[in-house]
Order: sequence, then structure tokens, then C-alpha cells
Amino acid sequence: MTDPANAFVPGPRARLAGRPGGPLSGLTYAVKDLFDVAGVPTGGGNHDWAKANPIPERHASVVQTLLDAGADLIGKTITDEVSLGILGENAFDGTPLNSAAPDRVPGGSSSGSAAAVAAGLCDTALGTDTGGSMRVPSSFCGLYGIRPTHGRLDLTGLMPQAPSSDTVGWFARDAETFARVGTVLLGEKPGPLPTKLLIAVDAFAFADPEVGAALRPMVEKLERIVGPGREEIMAPQGLSVWARAQRSLQPVEAWQTFKPWIEQHNPRMAFSVVAGLIAGSQVPASERNWAALMREEARARLRHLLPPGTILCLPTTPFPAPLRGLSTPVLQPMRDRITCLCAQGGLTGSPQVSLPGATIDGAPVGLSIIGGRGTDASLIAVAQAMEAIA
Amino acid sequence: MTDPANAFVPGPRARLAGRPGGPLSGLTYAVKDLFDVAGVPTGGGNHDWAKANPIPERHASVVQTLLDAGADLIGKTITDEVSLGILGENAFDGTPLNSAAPDRVPGGSSSGSAAAVAAGLCDTALGTDTGGSMRVPSSFCGLYGIRPTHGRLDLTGLMPQAPSSDTVGWFARDAETFARVGTVLLGEKPGPLPTKLLIAVDAFAFADPEVGAALRPMVEKLERIVGPGREEIMAPQGLSVWARAQRSLQPVEAWQTFKPWIEQHNPRMAFSVVAGLIAGSQVPASERNWAALMREEARARLRHLLPPGTILCLPTTPFPAPLRGLSTPVLQPMRDRITCLCAQGGLTGSPQVSLPGATIDGAPVGLSIIGGRGTDASLIAVAQAMEAIA
Repeated sequence: MTDPANAFVPGPRARLAGRPGGPLSGLTYAVKDLFDVAGVPTGGGNHDWAKANPIPERHASVVQTLLDAGADLIGKTITDEVSLGILGENAFDGTPLNSAAPDRVPGGSSSGSAAAVAAGLCDTALGTDTGGSMRVPSSFCGLYGIRPTHGRLDLTGLMPQAPSSDTVGWFARDAETFARVGTVLLGEKPGPLPTKLLIAVDAFAFADPEVGAALRPMVEKLERIVGPGREEIMAPQGLSVWARAQRSLQPVEAWQTFKPWIEQHNPRMAFSVVAGLIAGSQVPASERNWAALMREEARARLRHLLPPGTILCLPTTPFPAPLRGLSTPVLQPMRDRITCLCAQGGLTGSPQVSLPGATIDGAPVGLSIIGGRGTDASLIAVAQAMEAIA
Repeated sequence: MTDPANAFVPGPRARLAGRPGGPLSGLTYAVKDLFDVAGVPTGGGNHDWAKANPIPERHASVVQTLLDAGADLIGKTITDEVSLGILGENAFDGTPLNSAAPDRVPGGSSSGSAAAVAAGLCDTALGTDTGGSMRVPSSFCGLYGIRPTHGRLDLTGLMPQAPSSDTVGWFARDAETFARVGTVLLGEKPGPLPTKLLIAVDAFAFADPEVGAALRPMVEKLERIVGPGREEIMAPQGLSVWARAQRSLQPVEAWQTFKPWIEQHNPRMAFSVVAGLIAGSQVPASERNWAALMREEARARLRHLLPPGTILCLPTTPFPAPLRGLSTPVLQPMRDRITCLCAQGGLTGSPQVSLPGATIDGAPVGLSIIGGRGTDASLIAVAQAMEAIA
């Protein structure tokens, strides 16, 4: 089966027809290979994962929801190994194509889902976001993508990573498809539009200078949509402090998730993936305790800053997608900088949508909007409004 | 090509005829896939190693020496990944067969070389020993095997691990073949026989109780060969202290060896292999400095204890081969105990020969003899004498 974007996991393609007459009839979707599809091994992006786990007997909850709504499943997509990776380079299955910038990585870990949608191989695709895995590929591939409020979507049948941060999201090339899928998965129509916009000036300053310039027209559009309520803020406590806290929470949970499998099966993994897991195993209790407290404080601050009707905007990533095949000493500082902009998602559980529309030297970079917990449908309404005035 | 022992690396078998009329004419040998054979990729037990390294244009020095002496090369053998492993379970190429105990591991990292000789697929095979990689498979498979004096054999064309501990050795099923190869590689005939035997009673006590009992008849034979000069000693400074020192030296060097490749290529490896490398990257300078001093002291003590004519004996391993496929929490303490008996090799650079002849429930376990630096030929003479009175 041809796979021009190297988006799908190797082997026979998992295909299932949606229920006729549903609200998503006519749409096709793909699903990251962390989600169960009955009768198909869940690969998890690592060739030793499926060997250790039974073939699922039921579809993951969100897979079933999309089928029930009429969307046709066309395949399972490549993910960074066990969802640990932010760039989309899988040492076993290769790097899915970033159609918008073919010499660059697609971003990860929902790399194949983003690549499939970006290449037009399907209309939407399910991914996950623990530390940025929906938002980063959305930014790098020029897609709409959402990290919903933590706990909003049912994770049953999903291979976990760090449960207190794990979420399920979806990609689309256009706001209407993005909203149509959202209406089904959130069980709520888009809206209402927010009336106040906070601009995270420190996040803009932290990004490469070209990013702020490229995103400026989009921010101006946002201002037109939201109205006169505009305020510049600095991210509470500092981006690098939030990143440190998330780095002290998420990898610890990931280690706890995968430790039994690792100890039993000594799986083959890329060096960088093991390095991340071992770092998680070595976080001292004092650091974990501080991070847990910091998370409480971060959530409280966002509750204060983002009452209903207020959204915050910032660059989704501090730069467009890096080139493919760079070495670890080059990539690691880039990963660290990405974490500074993405940490808030896992830390606070707030919903975030990445909007396409800007490029730098042809490579996309996304503008993100964040709302208070539960305001997912409001963010989707903003996406629609942005596209309407494009 | 059939490979009943899963001893050889996958793919076409590297074969080269030896020079006619040499002292090893009629012998066949295999070579661990860390040694260069001209025109054949050096695989190093890791599927991403060869991709990053050019195909060698020359044979490794010892490969050439055996060809010049008339031995025929019949193939390259499986090794633990980048020689980091002591049990012989390679997650990419599988576990070579321990013919003497098929449900058990062969030992590593010279696993395929030991398996090939044990299965009778060749007469001798080259391996390496940094932290026990010749001695452990010798013990587990019931073979003669040597870790020569550090620096004695030319390592040109060998993929390094920890250069201050790396050595080249060989296996054989019988003492005559063992000695015949040794005469060529050492450039020296066997002899003279030692006249004093030290018995490392703490090492015997540290091994499983069955090991001491199983090795007793061999120790008694040794006493008959060496004569009345017999003395019981404790290993200087303690087995676990030597193990700690070696663990603070060898993994640090291994990390330095492989770091450029890892940083450039982010290779796929078994989790346990990465864990060892990362441990090496994290050894504090204070620990490294202590270990370097300890090494000096250990060498001095062995110089004092092992003047020419004196040898030391101990169990090669604290138990016979573990079963195949055990989990990490079970295996790690076994690896640690093996290191306690093997650390002296890398730490002091003294030569050590493992002698077959004992079994526990059918599984082999070796008796080791250690001499002062440079007395390799004397240890081989002991091997011949042991077999002569079998």
C-alpha cells in the first residue's frame, strides 16, 4: 500500500467503515498507534511493545466515537517510541513526511497523524499530547491541532505515558473539519467567543525573533476577533521554571508506566528514549515534591488569569521544525526550548489550540491560544473565526 | 546457511582460507564481530553501528595472524551489543546456543564465538575480554578460554570498548588446540609450570556453595601439578571493592568510546545497554579518581602476590549460566556478582585462563587460574597439564 508520507505503521492498513448517516459521514481519519483498534496490535512506536501486550479486543473509546459518528478509519500512524519524543524521528519506523517542509521533521510524538493529515491522506487524525505531542506537530506541519482540557476526553484503550498529563487530540487542515470533529468528541458545539486576549510577551520574546514577526498578523486577527480587551503578561513564575516542574513530573510518571515492561522485556529503543526514561527514574523525591506543589500553584494562577471569556496567546513552538537528522547535541537544546513553551499543558491541564497561518522561509509555525479548563469549545470557535477572516 | 547454534551474524558468512603449510593448517576459526575482516562490515552487535562506520579495508591484526598461520576463517560471530553485556543475550540477533546447557545463556559478550566452538562448528574462535567477556562464556559453555595480559596481543582493527581494559582472547574445546593457537598468538610455547598455588578462599566462599564443591576435584588436580606450595588467601582489598573500582573505570571509558557515535546517530539499543552507558556518563570525578588509585594499588598487590612461578585460582563465575530470558530485576544482581569475580582482569591486567571440567546439574562452571603479567604461556601449560591427567 503506498504511503507517500511514511505516515502509517508498516504492515496491513487497519481500515474500518464508519456508521452510515452520522455527523462525520464522508470524513476519513487515521489514529496514532497508541490507540487500540480491536484485532490489531497496538504498536506504540516500538517494535518490542506489541510482543509484550495482547491484541486488543475493543476499540479505544475515541476510536469508537468517531466510527459511531460516521468517520471511516483508514489506518494507524507512526508515533515516536512509546510517545516519548517531540520531533517525530522514530529510529525504527523512520520519520514521517512534513509535507509543508519536506526537509524538516514533522514534530512528534503524534508525527504520523500530523503527516497523514498534512499530506491530505485523511481529513482528520487522532493523536495524544502529554508534553506537546499534538501542539508541536501542529505547529511544524501547519495544522489545526488541539490539546483538550486534561480529563475531558475518555482515554480508555489508549496506551498511557504520564496519566496526570495525558490527553487525546485531533488534527485538521481546515477549521470547519477541526470544529466538526470537535463537536463530536467534545459533545459540544463551538463557542462562545472570548472577549479578552492576554499576550504572553515573554513567550514571544523567548521564541526566535522571526517567529514573533511571522505571527504578528495572526495576533492582530485575534485582537479583531476578541475585541478591545487586550493585555500583555509574563507567564507566571517563568517559562523555564514551569518547564523544570513538568520535567520533574512527566518523566517520573513515564518511568513508572513503562518500568514493568522494561524490566521484563529489556526492549530495544533509541538511545535518546532510554536516556529520557532513566532521567525520569533519577528525579529525587525533593524535586518531585517541589514540582507537585508548583503544579498546584500554576493551576491556581491560570484559574486567576483565565476566567471564562479570557484567552492567552503565545507561539506554539519557539521556532519552525528543525531539519531532519540532526545530532543529539544540536537537538537537545531545541527540545529544551520547546518544553519551555509547551510545559503549561501538562502542568495545568488547560486546553490549547494551535492555529496555522504563518511561515518562516516556507516552514510553518503555529500560534497557540489557551483558555481556562473546560473552554475547549471556545478555542475552537476562535479557530473558526480566524479562518473566516483569512 | 545453517547455523544450529545461532552463533554467526546474519547474512553471508565471511570465509577466508588460511595460508597453506602454516602451524595452524587444518584448524578452522570464527571471529567475534568486533574484529575487522577486510571487505566485511564490522557489526559490533548493534544494527546501527555498521551504518556509521566504513567497511574495513584491512583485517584486524589477530585475524591476519591466524590466517598467516594457516587457520581458515569460517565466519563472524554474534556479540553482545558493542561488547557491553556479560550474559550473551543480544536483543537484535538473539541468544547464541549454549550447547552444554541449551536452556541457559552462553555468557557474553563473546557469546557467538563461544557458542560456535562449543557446538563444534569451528576449532577455535577469537573473542575479547574487557570485564569478563572471554572468561564468563568459557565458564558457562565449558571451554578453555583466556584473557591474556593486557597489552600482550595487538588490538589493531578491533572495535574498542574501554581501552585500558580491552584484551583479545580465544576459545577451544581441548587444551592442545588451546595451546596450539596460543603458541601462534603469544609467539611463545607453553610453559613453564608454576610451583606455587594460591587459593582465593574468599572467592570460593562468595560463589554458590555448589560451585566450590564442583570445582574441588579440579583444585586438587591443580595442587598435584603445582606441587606442595599451596596457600589460602583473601583477595586483596575485597572482591566488591575491586568490582566497584572496575565499575568506575570501565563504563566511563566505554561512554567516552561510544559517545560520538551515540550523539551523532542516536542508535537503537537494548534498554540495559543504554542504562550501562548512561551510568558510565554519570560517574563522578571523585569516584573515578579513587578508582584509578585503587587500580594502581591492586596492580601492586598482585605483583607482590604473584611473582613468577605463583598462580592464583578461583571460580571463574559464582554460578553456572543463568536460564535464558530472565527479567532485569533477576539478572542485575547476578551481573553484579559476576563482576565481583571478574573485576581483577580489567583492573590489574593480569592474564587469566578459565579451565573446563566441572558441572552443576549438567551446566558447566569454570575454574580460573591467574598469573602475574606476562605469564600467559605458563597458564596455558597448566591447562595442558590439567587435561593430561584428566
